[in-house]
Amino acid sequence: MTELAAAKAALKTQAVETPSWAYANSGTRFKVFAQQGVPRTPQEKLDDAAKVHEFTGVAPSVALHIPWDRTDDYTALAEHAGDRGVRLGTINSNTFQDDAYRLGSVCHPDAAVRRKAVDHLLECVDIMDATGSADLKLWFADGTNYPGQDDIRARQDRLAEALAEVYGRLGEGQRMLLEYKLFEPSFYTTDVPDWGTAYAHCLKLGPRAQVVVDTGHHAPGTNIEFIVATLLREERLGGFDFNSRFYADDDLMVGSADPFQLFRIMHEVVRGGGFTSGTAFMLDQCHNIEAKIPAIIRSVMNVQEATAKALLVDADALAAAQRDGDVLGANAVLMDAYNTDVRPLLREVREEMGLDPDPIEAYRRSGWAERIVAERVGGEQAGWGA
Amino acid sequence: MTELAAAKAALKTQAVETPSWAYANSGTRFKVFAQQGVPRTPQEKLDDAAKVHEFTGVAPSVALHIPWDRTDDYTALAEHAGDRGVRLGTINSNTFQDDAYRLGSVCHPDAAVRRKAVDHLLECVDIMDATGSADLKLWFADGTNYPGQDDIRARQDRLAEALAEVYGRLGEGQRMLLEYKLFEPSFYTTDVPDWGTAYAHCLKLGPRAQVVVDTGHHAPGTNIEFIVATLLREERLGGFDFNSRFYADDDLMVGSADPFQLFRIMHEVVRGGGFTSGTAFMLDQCHNIEAKIPAIIRSVMNVQEATAKALLVDADALAAAQRDGDVLGANAVLMDAYNTDVRPLLREVREEMGLDPDPIEAYRRSGWAERIVAERVGGEQAGWGA
Amino acid sequence: MTELAAAKAALKTQAVETPSWAYANSGTRFKVFAQQGVPRTPQEKLDDAAKVHEFTGVAPSVALHIPWDRTDDYTALAEHAGDRGVRLGTINSNTFQDDAYRLGSVCHPDAAVRRKAVDHLLECVDIMDATGSADLKLWFADGTNYPGQDDIRARQDRLAEALAEVYGRLGEGQRMLLEYKLFEPSFYTTDVPDWGTAYAHCLKLGPRAQVVVDTGHHAPGTNIEFIVATLLREERLGGFDFNSRFYADDDLMVGSADPFQLFRIMHEVVRGGGFTSGTAFMLDQCHNIEAKIPAIIRSVMNVQEATAKALLVDADALAAAQRDGDVLGANAVLMDAYNTDVRPLLREVREEMGLDPDPIEAYRRSGWAERIVAERVGGEQAGWGA
Amino acid sequence: MTELAAAKAALKTQAVETPSWAYANSGTRFKVFAQQGVPRTPQEKLDDAAKVHEFTGVAPSVALHIPWDRTDDYTALAEHAGDRGVRLGTINSNTFQDDAYRLGSVCHPDAAVRRKAVDHLLECVDIMDATGSADLKLWFADGTNYPGQDDIRARQDRLAEALAEVYGRLGEGQRMLLEYKLFEPSFYTTDVPDWGTAYAHCLKLGPRAQVVVDTGHHAPGTNIEFIVATLLREERLGGFDFNSRFYADDDLMVGSADPFQLFRIMHEVVRGGGFTSGTAFMLDQCHNIEAKIPAIIRSVMNVQEATAKALLVDADALAAAQRDGDVLGANAVLMDAYNTDVRPLLREVREEMGLDPDPIEAYRRSGWAERIVAERVGGEQAGWGA
Repeated sequence: MTELAAAKAALKTQAVETPSWAYANSGTRFKVFAQQGVPRTPQEKLDDAAKVHEFTGVAPSVALHIPWDRTDDYTALAEHAGDRGVRLGTINSNTFQDDAYRLGSVCHPDAAVRRKAVDHLLECVDIMDATGSADLKLWFADGTNYPGQDDIRARQDRLAEALAEVYGRLGEGQRMLLEYKLFEPSFYTTDVPDWGTAYAHCLKLGPRAQVVVDTGHHAPGTNIEFIVATLLREERLGGFDFNSRFYADDDLMVGSADPFQLFRIMHEVVRGGGFTSGTAFMLDQCHNIEAKIPAIIRSVMNVQEATAKALLVDADALAAAQRDGDVLGANAVLMDAYNTDVRPLLREVREEMGLDPDPIEAYRRSGWAERIVAERVGGEQAGWGA
Repeated sequence: MTELAAAKAALKTQAVETPSWAYANSGTRFKVFAQQGVPRTPQEKLDDAAKVHEFTGVAPSVALHIPWDRTDDYTALAEHAGDRGVRLGTINSNTFQDDAYRLGSVCHPDAAVRRKAVDHLLECVDIMDATGSADLKLWFADGTNYPGQDDIRARQDRLAEALAEVYGRLGEGQRMLLEYKLFEPSFYTTDVPDWGTAYAHCLKLGPRAQVVVDTGHHAPGTNIEFIVATLLREERLGGFDFNSRFYADDDLMVGSADPFQLFRIMHEVVRGGGFTSGTAFMLDQCHNIEAKIPAIIRSVMNVQEATAKALLVDADALAAAQRDGDVLGANAVLMDAYNTDVRPLLREVREEMGLDPDPIEAYRRSGWAERIVAERVGGEQAGWGA
Repeated sequence: MTELAAAKAALKTQAVETPSWAYANSGTRFKVFAQQGVPRTPQEKLDDAAKVHEFTGVAPSVALHIPWDRTDDYTALAEHAGDRGVRLGTINSNTFQDDAYRLGSVCHPDAAVRRKAVDHLLECVDIMDATGSADLKLWFADGTNYPGQDDIRARQDRLAEALAEVYGRLGEGQRMLLEYKLFEPSFYTTDVPDWGTAYAHCLKLGPRAQVVVDTGHHAPGTNIEFIVATLLREERLGGFDFNSRFYADDDLMVGSADPFQLFRIMHEVVRGGGFTSGTAFMLDQCHNIEAKIPAIIRSVMNVQEATAKALLVDADALAAAQRDGDVLGANAVLMDAYNTDVRPLLREVREEMGLDPDPIEAYRRSGWAERIVAERVGGEQAGWGA
Repeated sequence: MTELAAAKAALKTQAVETPSWAYANSGTRFKVFAQQGVPRTPQEKLDDAAKVHEFTGVAPSVALHIPWDRTDDYTALAEHAGDRGVRLGTINSNTFQDDAYRLGSVCHPDAAVRRKAVDHLLECVDIMDATGSADLKLWFADGTNYPGQDDIRARQDRLAEALAEVYGRLGEGQRMLLEYKLFEPSFYTTDVPDWGTAYAHCLKLGPRAQVVVDTGHHAPGTNIEFIVATLLREERLGGFDFNSRFYADDDLMVGSADPFQLFRIMHEVVRGGGFTSGTAFMLDQCHNIEAKIPAIIRSVMNVQEATAKALLVDADALAAAQRDGDVLGANAVLMDAYNTDVRPLLREVREEMGLDPDPIEAYRRSGWAERIVAERVGGEQAGWGA
């Protein structure tokens, strides 16, 4: 198989999970701008996600967020998804929106609050059993706002205890994906602020505890691809939450702020075997001002383009230049791939997959946008609060 | 008058304006944790603000935010304040919470939206006329999230046009205070992102257009006291929005994240004549997890402590060491003042003002906290949305 | 003329000035790694710069740095350049390497040191008269390392006085380009830390005082293209010092760290008329570990590629989408240009200019690299200290 | 023993190691300003360090840097130290100043360079055997400047191999302290960029491999005290390199940029048992523009003041407020200690130790500054290059 053929094959089997909440309303602390046609139920979110998969061919699963996607019958929800050509993916927990969690959840000084939070996490594993989801994604908003507010170290002890209980509950083939984040909503300390902390906890739990890299969760200047390479080397890269940022956790469309960084990340993924090691590729974005479904389609395409470029890197030439200490030559090999316009290649890939080569245009022609505006009238639009 | 006496005199006449919205509920995009006893009306916010002034003696005015504090009768509102020993202060506009403002307000590509926004600003000047407020504070959430989304330069033209119309409407003795902010809620461009942009617009408008420095609105590593010194030198420092931050616009209690920075800022204020030049000292904070009134009292006290230390700097010794190029000596003069425990001095000042030397304890003993929890039952608590 | 033809015409007339010091040794405070074949004299630097122009066709001038390029006979130096097909460009001053400048130069507390510094700047204007250079570029390392070390405001007064004297000395057709930098080598305050400070000084001096944007001199998260758009709108963008950075003032090859940012900057340049308004496009880089001449050729090519993409933006489609508030559509128009592989276009442009389409390869074949290694034996290699 | 007595006892036994190179000339890439009286030999550096200990009483050991402090007879050097009341401390390796290290040392693509680097590290352990030093401090400048320049992951493999060999060579009672640094002198990747990477390597090596926290080596916004608390909890905090920074690795006097941060760090040290667990407290600073010996005395005093404040935190009151979720109360307990002026306490401590209560003034009166200027004439001043 030629390299190009190999690249095309890889691109056809790529899977990018989209998050149910990205189809719902979102915003900043200043304002949530509601959009017409936004889903009102988990089912309608799945309907939208199915459209993204229909036109891209590489978004076959949908992450759920509990309680935002809570339902009485997860089996029925899974069937709803299956009927539309997608499946339920990662289960995301939420321990930050109950009034009890003002000072934290699993790290809260009060054992009763911690119990409540752990029970929620265990419920999420129950849901995984029902939906057949393999991954439990844990992001904790826990932290403090003021120096002295709580004991940094004691909070780590509480965190470790909670994680151990949940890890012990995981079934065969289930993983715990632990996400880190520098800050927000906590502003002085965050209890899992960096990959090192997440990694240290995962090490103690066991091999099915893995780290999630959200591309918007780092301090300015952090080299994310270095972390990706390191976690792959340590066999602890559980997955990505893709998005992009200029400043903080902006949650913009992946690849929109720094497409070269996304390419460098995908280069490390290719280099480190991330496509074949179970690393999950997920989006975690907020489309505060732009139309949501086309924004998600565009995001999936951005991941595809970065991936295609990474697959086109001439690995032999690169290794040779690196071995020779040829700084400019090695950089040029990488840049050659990055500077390539891979959109024609991806159009070919889509056509070979039986898809329209232009997913955005195909979506636009489909009339779905108009239809949901017309049909989704009344009820309460989904958002982060519901 | 001795230096100490002068410092005490200055501390007694200091005025820190508190913002009505800091008494209301606030939070992050993830969650607003409601607190018991929070005001439901502008009047109740004033009641709380009056308590802060009662116990600190240096918080005599309250900033309003329109429409959050909209009322039918501003004269009555001013009387309500006056009856409680405080007065209405700066009027803050809001051009970010109407659905029309999804893509901006005064910088919006659509002239009709810009008209709506300018009309709101003009209404704010009407309110100033009614309340006797001297300052109109303008913060624009305007900006874009994606490269190419709008024309950066055209937005500046629109901004300039709107500001000119509003400036022209100001009455005698009224000022326009223009605030800048690096990012949030916009994530790619912000239309007034830095002091340079605010300053350039103010220059074109006239002497009553002045820049506001919000201490949480800068890029990491920005030397805020340099900006303060520069704006004072240019006679364009209209005022401060005090708060503190570890990462972004965290809006924590002023002085809680970097008290040394606050001292350095106050040192430049003292050095540059900011106490006698009309610079307004305002708080702009969010007490997301802590009790609001004591947090504001504490914030006012933090400003007092930084001010006291700045007033204690031995200006002659500092100037001499600076003139001699004595790096360590000059630094030591500044640090001597900073390392002084000024709390005893401030207790004295308060006693001389007829106040309890410990405002926090006095507030606690007053029973106000329990009373508002008991009395403010029912109705809708105030927040950023109302 | 078609748009493509217009783009090609613009690319053919583009001029990127290369700095003499980029051909010399450079490094960090930890180590300067000397390279074989590095110039020992200003003449040899010009020889190398001429090679860059020979193979790229768009690097016709060379910036000098005084005293690093001091010579007895600037007329002869200009002839040396002319004989090799290039000309002398911007004169860069140096007020940071004399022992007298430990605490600053034009902002130093001691008037004698300030006099010395101003005299150097005046000497630079004399040199401009001799070389026919139009631009005097001023970067001041002035600042302080410790709070209190010197008076921030007094230093601004001294700076203003020095600039006024030098501005008054400028001849017809000469400009003063004032550069700002966040930090380094000063670590607490820098006397011209941001564009606002440089702009405020330029305003007071006159229209021939203009701001220089060094792309590595900003705080993390600064939107540089916003500054570019603003300075063009204010008719104060004197020029660029191009380079790239991941962290601080890394001085890497322009376009190597964030090629998308470089494209966005060039988009604002095109949008704001920067190609026809006298804005100078200069490199200011350090090739600490890579071969210098090919690194500079590559850098010039990176500027060309970003420029080509900016010229290919469909301005009408962009304006229409912006006017319609079509966030995704407007972003897509910009990204279409960015995602285009412009290397074939630039190869065409070069061939039409009578150049080899691949400057790097042509340079390699020329044997110049081997020749300078063989010939430049003995003597003292040029660096920042000499 | 009362709490105050306990605090005083702890302060009397505190030990802050000073680095030999801080007594020598240093600077930035722009300029090293030489100072009069600077040591020319390792012996003279020790003479200066002995003065710091003489006047502070808490700086009993001196870190060496090889090859800057290379000598023929380390036993004699140790005796020289002992005669002056100090002892030799940590041995610091240097694998960044040989021309061979242009592309790295232990991570270099060429095995011969790696061998050379490892041999140097092994030589450092030999020196430790001779000097009786317990700690080998490893900081690697290794990294890359351009994407693609080298293989991130392969470099980690090489690093691991080198560390394992050196760790295996350590004698009984010797430790390896691994330092991390975000960037500089490398600008794209650094091979040990963060605590997580250092920690992961230490884990694989064994219990005597520990992490060093240099307070200037983090990304903006990093919460250093969180890392300190975490490493203490993991029993992997080998020591500190104290200094302070506003922007990057500024290497200013510890406590001069953010004294509150230093206090928070010392609070976690006290909380986590760092004073009794073998954590080394070292300075690593550059006194580029200020007099070196008094700057180091001042730095030691800054560490003492932060320590004293941390020791005065009312641990019981703090724990109670934290347990109650009293955000403001807990913060107030911490701030009470921070706001205390501990200088009188430290003067007492010094008097009880038989020292002058004012070390800076005592040093000034000693005439040492004048004496070294007079006596250290001729020869070559020590710096980073020698």
